[in-house]
Amino acid sequence: MAYGSRMVIDLNADLGEGFGVWRLGDDEALLDLVTSANVACGFHAGDASTMRRVCEQAVARGVVIGAQVGYRDLAGFGRRRIEMEPAELAADVLYQIGALDGFARIAGDRVRYVKPHGALYNTAMVDPVQAEAVASAIADYSHPLVLLGRPDTELSRAAAAHSIPYVAEAFADRAYLSSGQLAPRTVDGSVIVDPDEVVARSLALAREHAVLSTDGSLLTVAARSLCLHGDTPGAAHLARRVRGALIEAGITIAAFAD
Amino acid sequence: MAYGSRMVIDLNADLGEGFGVWRLGDDEALLDLVTSANVACGFHAGDASTMRRVCEQAVARGVVIGAQVGYRDLAGFGRRRIEMEPAELAADVLYQIGALDGFARIAGDRVRYVKPHGALYNTAMVDPVQAEAVASAIADYSHPLVLLGRPDTELSRAAAAHSIPYVAEAFADRAYLSSGQLAPRTVDGSVIVDPDEVVARSLALAREHAVLSTDGSLLTVAARSLCLHGDTPGAAHLARRVRGALIEAGITIAAFAD
Amino acid sequence: MAYGSRMVIDLNADLGEGFGVWRLGDDEALLDLVTSANVACGFHAGDASTMRRVCEQAVARGVVIGAQVGYRDLAGFGRRRIEMEPAELAADVLYQIGALDGFARIAGDRVRYVKPHGALYNTAMVDPVQAEAVASAIADYSHPLVLLGRPDTELSRAAAAHSIPYVAEAFADRAYLSSGQLAPRTVDGSVIVDPDEVVARSLALAREHAVLSTDGSLLTVAARSLCLHGDTPGAAHLARRVRGALIEAGITIAAFAD
Amino acid sequence: MAYGSRMVIDLNADLGEGFGVWRLGDDEALLDLVTSANVACGFHAGDASTMRRVCEQAVARGVVIGAQVGYRDLAGFGRRRIEMEPAELAADVLYQIGALDGFARIAGDRVRYVKPHGALYNTAMVDPVQAEAVASAIADYSHPLVLLGRPDTELSRAAAAHSIPYVAEAFADRAYLSSGQLAPRTVDGSVIVDPDEVVARSLALAREHAVLSTDGSLLTVAARSLCLHGDTPGAAHLARRVRGALIEAGITIAAFAD
Repeated sequence: MAYGSRMVIDLNADLGEGFGVWRLGDDEALLDLVTSANVACGFHAGDASTMRRVCEQAVARGVVIGAQVGYRDLAGFGRRRIEMEPAELAADVLYQIGALDGFARIAGDRVRYVKPHGALYNTAMVDPVQAEAVASAIADYSHPLVLLGRPDTELSRAAAAHSIPYVAEAFADRAYLSSGQLAPRTVDGSVIVDPDEVVARSLALAREHAVLSTDGSLLTVAARSLCLHGDTPGAAHLARRVRGALIEAGITIAAFAD
Repeated sequence: MAYGSRMVIDLNADLGEGFGVWRLGDDEALLDLVTSANVACGFHAGDASTMRRVCEQAVARGVVIGAQVGYRDLAGFGRRRIEMEPAELAADVLYQIGALDGFARIAGDRVRYVKPHGALYNTAMVDPVQAEAVASAIADYSHPLVLLGRPDTELSRAAAAHSIPYVAEAFADRAYLSSGQLAPRTVDGSVIVDPDEVVARSLALAREHAVLSTDGSLLTVAARSLCLHGDTPGAAHLARRVRGALIEAGITIAAFAD
Repeated sequence: MAYGSRMVIDLNADLGEGFGVWRLGDDEALLDLVTSANVACGFHAGDASTMRRVCEQAVARGVVIGAQVGYRDLAGFGRRRIEMEPAELAADVLYQIGALDGFARIAGDRVRYVKPHGALYNTAMVDPVQAEAVASAIADYSHPLVLLGRPDTELSRAAAAHSIPYVAEAFADRAYLSSGQLAPRTVDGSVIVDPDEVVARSLALAREHAVLSTDGSLLTVAARSLCLHGDTPGAAHLARRVRGALIEAGITIAAFAD
Repeated sequence: MAYGSRMVIDLNADLGEGFGVWRLGDDEALLDLVTSANVACGFHAGDASTMRRVCEQAVARGVVIGAQVGYRDLAGFGRRRIEMEPAELAADVLYQIGALDGFARIAGDRVRYVKPHGALYNTAMVDPVQAEAVASAIADYSHPLVLLGRPDTELSRAAAAHSIPYVAEAFADRAYLSSGQLAPRTVDGSVIVDPDEVVARSLALAREHAVLSTDGSLLTVAARSLCLHGDTPGAAHLARRVRGALIEAGITIAAFAD
């Protein structure tokens, strides 16, 4: 996205997704690459010690802290849709934001944005009831927060209805349908594994807000942030390549929240 | 405790100790009687919806909100000592405070004090390591907090070391040893069930800071707060009697935190 | 249901639905009234000590033990549908059955049937995927088990496909649509609160397999078991009345499993 | 240990210690090396799907299934001592055994032994109350089980009091004090990291029941089983070397339970 004559993009990644003795992804490697950290808040991943540490490390590197909120489902890593009452979902979202915000403030910053995780992310994109529950929770919080998600979705509309700033993100390693939806993970080729292609798509998304869809048409995705994945082998290495290519192309890597 | 020519006492009780479908105690009845609400924060009891509701009800009544922090042990209601690393315990305490503080701020107030629950309360009174972990957590929090507990304990000393204000509480329905310790619950007569005696001891504690110990000696307990129990049958009725007797005796019922 | 010249009905109720310090319903009162106990297995309610105790009490009274299996969702009491992979759901169901069966064997009996709980019950009635997951789990278990649920549902069909005996139950305190479905709880009058009406419907269901639907038509519900609810005030008293009325009408109260 | 003219040793390892999306150790590599699998049962690690899979894989390889029981503490991986009532602990142990036994029976075998995990292991070695709780649970189970642990401990004595067969294990990668206790992990050198030394100690333990203690004296450890660790980098490789060296030395690798 161009600000004046310069192109600017944010890099976000999921962090702090371990739990207790278990680890997932390389938090420290990714913290050196991203500008926005989606920190798990303990309901689907993350524990208090990890949250505290990641907040400290993020602040030390100038990385912006966001709340990666999810369903209360450690056993399912938040990847299973739960049909919740909106009021219960809103309270669960606020609980997670509050807990993380405590650690963010101790580290000298605040939680500045919210990104739903897993099945809550997918549900909030298409289900107006859960989207409204998430947005109303954020609107109720005592500190202004940005919502991060896919553009032109139920969540972006709910955010607008509550006057919550909404930042659009794109995925360089996921196939897009010509409708703008992501191809379902069950479809062959839905996850792009060729590093060169991921880098090329990152550049196209950052420079031209464009990505080739699965039917070959050029799709516009006006994303201010790119989501980097960190939980697969070689993920940190690929994230480093993407970041390097963006910088080399003259694109400014900068957080959307300040 | 006398402020100028008047005697003042706070009444605190554990609230929001249900979880999901399960209820414990009569939150609304007690909220009309106490000046300080120890709200469970989800680790040993309490869920997000309950926390949100109790915070709103407390603020609506002018009741001060405190964080009832405990071990992560829903199955044991926080009544089982867990030998935790101090850093892990401190992070768990901060997580709970942060989560409750989010709801307190939404309701228009803040968490103003912390009272450990169950086995963490008992452990923090006698174990300098866990006492220090709790106190250091509170010292690290971004907002000043008071600690509530028994006087002359490891926790009161750890609070002093961190310059945390410490408020002493007393129990009108528990037998005291002449050492100032509570008689263990396993001892016959350790819980005082006669309502008249509980009322009489409440008055003596509030007016004279005195209570008869199990060996008949008069013990000084300089408490600024009385802990009322709410989770037994008839508890709310007894709490109402205690409050009425204190008011009738000219004692001001007022929170210790403002 | 008539066996030879006699009418026979089973009475089942949900039991052991507390968790830790929290209680729900009057287990002992209901154990004196029912012939089949749906014992919660720890995923949505129930803890190990409660399961052990209820199994012992059931065996002492000759009450048959069934596994009340549910989603892993203590915070939601299993009342929130979770979109799970069938293999994961089957494993979760087997885990719960195995755990309860351990206590049943210690008490001198076995788990003899399975009744899904809450949202899993409702989902298994209408969703062929989750119905199949539950039925396949039961078919895989090392010990023969009966399935208990509403007749003519996805679960009854999945049971038939796996040659699992299926026992139909009816609800004397719930309104039926003329389709045979239960009226949703959100509909006014969906729960019948008049004790006399519940007793009358119990008799009609046991003697004539008939119940008046919400549009006034007579509906056939060929139930071998009546579900009694135990978690509302006065529930045990009403259950006692239903049982008394059935016996007085010459109906034999007997478990479906032996 | 010699049976007739042959020396025989069992190799046991902790398996199935992931939870949900999180993995720990290389289950399949270790299943090809051990004769006894200590399978986590869901309280401190392990989930239903993992338990089912590990049981199937163990049976397919002729590996004996044991229940790795622990405190209900996923966040602490069962490594934090919890002061529990003996009856509650016994019920929790039985719940875990029952759940695993369900999967073992589906896979065509049974749970044949129990090994406490983490803090419960350490506590049961020295605390007669928790040792008795564990032993009484196993004595109550409906199927005979062996207990696996360190020799000459509170747990071995509690097992003897209940006539439960007790199998002694040794640790080739842990330093022993001359008292027979393991050197605490906080002590430098308590964990032996030199692979050659671990192999040498394995041979000495299997052939001569002997190990050099930290003060240089020769200690007798009459172990029928060696515990291999699987959750560190290179663990499976080292386990393979130990197994190879034992076989090359003419020692029979065979389970203690059959």
